Amino acid sequence: MILGIDIGGTKTSVCAGDADGRILFSARMPSLPERGPDDWMKRLFRLAQEVLAESGIDLTDVRSIGISAPGPLSVQRGALLSPPNMTGWETVPVIAPVQDHFGRPVYMNNDANAGVLAEWLWGGCAGTKDMIFLTMSTGLGAGIIAGGTLVQGACDMGGEAGYHVLDPMGPASPCGHRGSFEAFCGGKNAADRFSRRMKYPRPADFRHFMDEVRRKNPIALEEWEIYIEHLAQGIGNLIMILNPSIILLGTIAMHTGSIIFDELSRRLPAYTVPEALKACRIEAATLGRYLGDHAALAVAAKNMAQ
Amino acid sequence: MILGIDIGGTKTSVCAGDADGRILFSARMPSLPERGPDDWMKRLFRLAQEVLAESGIDLTDVRSIGISAPGPLSVQRGALLSPPNMTGWETVPVIAPVQDHFGRPVYMNNDANAGVLAEWLWGGCAGTKDMIFLTMSTGLGAGIIAGGTLVQGACDMGGEAGYHVLDPMGPASPCGHRGSFEAFCGGKNAADRFSRRMKYPRPADFRHFMDEVRRKNPIALEEWEIYIEHLAQGIGNLIMILNPSIILLGTIAMHTGSIIFDELSRRLPAYTVPEALKACRIEAATLGRYLGDHAALAVAAKNMAQ
Repeated sequence: MILGIDIGGTKTSVCAGDADGRILFSARMPSLPERGPDDWMKRLFRLAQEVLAESGIDLTDVRSIGISAPGPLSVQRGALLSPPNMTGWETVPVIAPVQDHFGRPVYMNNDANAGVLAEWLWGGCAGTKDMIFLTMSTGLGAGIIAGGTLVQGACDMGGEAGYHVLDPMGPASPCGHRGSFEAFCGGKNAADRFSRRMKYPRPADFRHFMDEVRRKNPIALEEWEIYIEHLAQGIGNLIMILNPSIILLGTIAMHTGSIIFDELSRRLPAYTVPEALKACRIEAATLGRYLGDHAALAVAAKNMAQ
Repeated sequence: MILGIDIGGTKTSVCAGDADGRILFSARMPSLPERGPDDWMKRLFRLAQEVLAESGIDLTDVRSIGISAPGPLSVQRGALLSPPNMTGWETVPVIAPVQDHFGRPVYMNNDANAGVLAEWLWGGCAGTKDMIFLTMSTGLGAGIIAGGTLVQGACDMGGEAGYHVLDPMGPASPCGHRGSFEAFCGGKNAADRFSRRMKYPRPADFRHFMDEVRRKNPIALEEWEIYIEHLAQGIGNLIMILNPSIILLGTIAMHTGSIIFDELSRRLPAYTVPEALKACRIEAATLGRYLGDHAALAVAAKNMAQ
């Protein structure tokens, strides 16, 4: 058995599953990053105990624990390093406290790398040598398989494509990089921009923004144009740099459906050469609602297989 | 023995060497792409015969032929596919005619992939798992080693980073992509832009442009600012997407020396996160003047080793 912990800026979920990606039980809690890491860690341990109890698993049956967490992070130091949507979490050790608490080997990777591993191991892409998974939730990160290998990078920052700059005159993002892929296309950043222009008292979420796009709210349509054009540019850049055969899009694309894929088909030729674009399928992530849980399990499964 | 053929938009060189990267003899000719592929191929065969004769090698001693050529190209089809600086060369078969002429196995890869292989095999980067080589000559391409594997891509277009778009409102380039890394930082594009602004009757080369930068010609300084800032953005993007431990810069950086590296050090923090930047050394390609020859040999050496 594997315990999977999927950490996000909005929610954290814990699941019990196995090395073939089967999920027995999964539960979630709000992450509430503003309350700080200690509060979060206490609630995480409680949730994990509940998951073990609910799934009837004894801790002695758990072989390892896999963690999928928002980047940037250091696998070597076992710590989160100021993830953009968790303000104040500067260097937050995660592997050591979880290992100490449960007494089991703990493996961690960022959510994008974990996601691409899950899709590669258990999704519809088995055997693919070159693929990319874009998280597309609160933030925006990429997990990259190139030449049949996960691109982990020199210090675990391979695939941090959300930081790559699409337009140096573009909007600032919480991470401080002007005009980055995440500044334009991170779900929170896009929804916040729309909310500010609408003068909402509190920022709405991306789902509300998309509802307003469908209702043809003129401000929503303007912001959608910015969002989708830069999404095409960012994805086009990844196609030209890495020449993948599949790009899988995460949360937002899974929720909003065909409109994103239709617009990308229309806009991608301006950012790619025909051969590279033709070689690349762009689809919604195949593991669906429980992708985060699968991702956390995949981190442990991959390390156990090595 | 290996025969190496290094094709460029400006010159083509042929060398005789071995699978350990030793070069016995090398000769070059202008490519003159405007005269078309047939003329070029005839002159190439003549040059190859001269190289064999000068180095005292019999064709029967040649085990294979390695070709380094400007991208985009298809290894599978053995053809060049409209390289940006060879106008009119739309689909130009290269492997088949060379193989027919010499009767030896021929392997081809693009100059950036060939260059990174040569540096990885015989340069100062042996053992590196994550490295990038940027060609920086007439055009601009990247060869990428990620997780210890060459990023060839789904259709041999891995590393075509010259096409990735830095600013959608930027200058058009011959390849038709607005604001691409190559549009800003390809040697020919930058020198052409400077020449147009200077109203030169014929475009000057990059070396002349750099001479004018050093003379503090105000137009040259303006164009240098555009060049070097976008070079920082493009390199920063590659650092954030791939997290390499080494980036090697080709021709232009080898000629212009420290000014490029000093400026990059100053400007890269705006486009990267500190950990990823700290993990990455940026240096001139180590194989120097004969890098192109080594690159062509490396393509054959790598395929012979597999």
